[in-house]
Amino acid sequence: MGVVSATARSDRYPKQDRSRATRQKLLEAAVACLAEHGWTGSTVTVVAERAGVSRGAAQHHFPTREDLFTAAVEYVAEQRSSALRELPAQDRRSVVAALVDLYTGPLFRAALHLWVAASHEEQLHARVTELEARVGRETHRIAVELLRADESVPGVRETVQGFLDMARGLGLANVLTDDRARRERVVEQWAGLLDGALGD
Amino acid sequence: MGVVSATARSDRYPKQDRSRATRQKLLEAAVACLAEHGWTGSTVTVVAERAGVSRGAAQHHFPTREDLFTAAVEYVAEQRSSALRELPAQDRRSVVAALVDLYTGPLFRAALHLWVAASHEEQLHARVTELEARVGRETHRIAVELLRADESVPGVRETVQGFLDMARGLGLANVLTDDRARRERVVEQWAGLLDGALGD
Repeated sequence: MGVVSATARSDRYPKQDRSRATRQKLLEAAVACLAEHGWTGSTVTVVAERAGVSRGAAQHHFPTREDLFTAAVEYVAEQRSSALRELPAQDRRSVVAALVDLYTGPLFRAALHLWVAASHEEQLHARVTELEARVGRETHRIAVELLRADESVPGVRETVQGFLDMARGLGLANVLTDDRARRERVVEQWAGLLDGALGD
Repeated sequence: MGVVSATARSDRYPKQDRSRATRQKLLEAAVACLAEHGWTGSTVTVVAERAGVSRGAAQHHFPTREDLFTAAVEYVAEQRSSALRELPAQDRRSVVAALVDLYTGPLFRAALHLWVAASHEEQLHARVTELEARVGRETHRIAVELLRADESVPGVRETVQGFLDMARGLGLANVLTDDRARRERVVEQWAGLLDGALGD
């Protein structure tokens, strides 16, 4: 490798790093903004300001509002998936609790706002539907693995799906009020029922 | 009873009927509007127009936007509750399907928009939280009754709550796409789990 290309690389890499850091700051600010202010209150300008990035730089990374917010929800969903996949092997009750936790933080809140806005905003509908299907499949795959569920057994697939629907419903119940106490009792009870339904 | 008061009554009753009919038209239009256009697109003016009522008459019945939309969601929720309470005795699988249906129509869609808007709109938050708690308690009561669930048995209360959370999650999954085929398989499987968990 010659001196010239080595120099070119050392120039290029920090720039890529800076660009990646800017992108990350924008994505994280976008999720926080969506979770706090909803779709109507979430614009590229508000997010750029929150991230400490110029509006021009924000638009360089994300040409439209839809680009920014769908990318943000996907980015954070991927981070959550990676964190789940790195969990050490655990008993089913802990896995159930960890999966339910996916639906009670700012990511769920942000995704919910995007989802609801997409139901009546044409520019969002196709993109969010596609994103949701992708994130949903990935979450299902992780849940099956962590719960050690054998989907070749009839009904097991639907048992896991219904559990993830329950987790989503618990997330919705937590949007307006802190529902933690009730949720813990429901999770405790259903973890037992699920454990029985999934077998060894 | 004298002639004068009898005349006064015959004058008054039709007027009350008309007023009640106007109120109902507004409430139904408000739910439809919220379900289709979301909170941002739902104003008293839009609803009055849809109901074929003057804006003044609408404001006479509902002084604020918040009054109109919270009353509308409550009105339709009460209608649904009454319809459920009048169902003939059925097996648990049919009851489970009927309860899940509560969360897949325009009422759930309207309530969802109101709920999500309330998470970041101060004027709505307290009212919707209170409304939601009231409707939630009533739905739970009806579910316990229709499912013939014995809440004196430890865990049964949480079993029913978790099932209603699942129904809510299924409703959310139906907002962007027609999720009926998947939902029917999940409901079939969970009706079995629930039946086993609730016993005779």
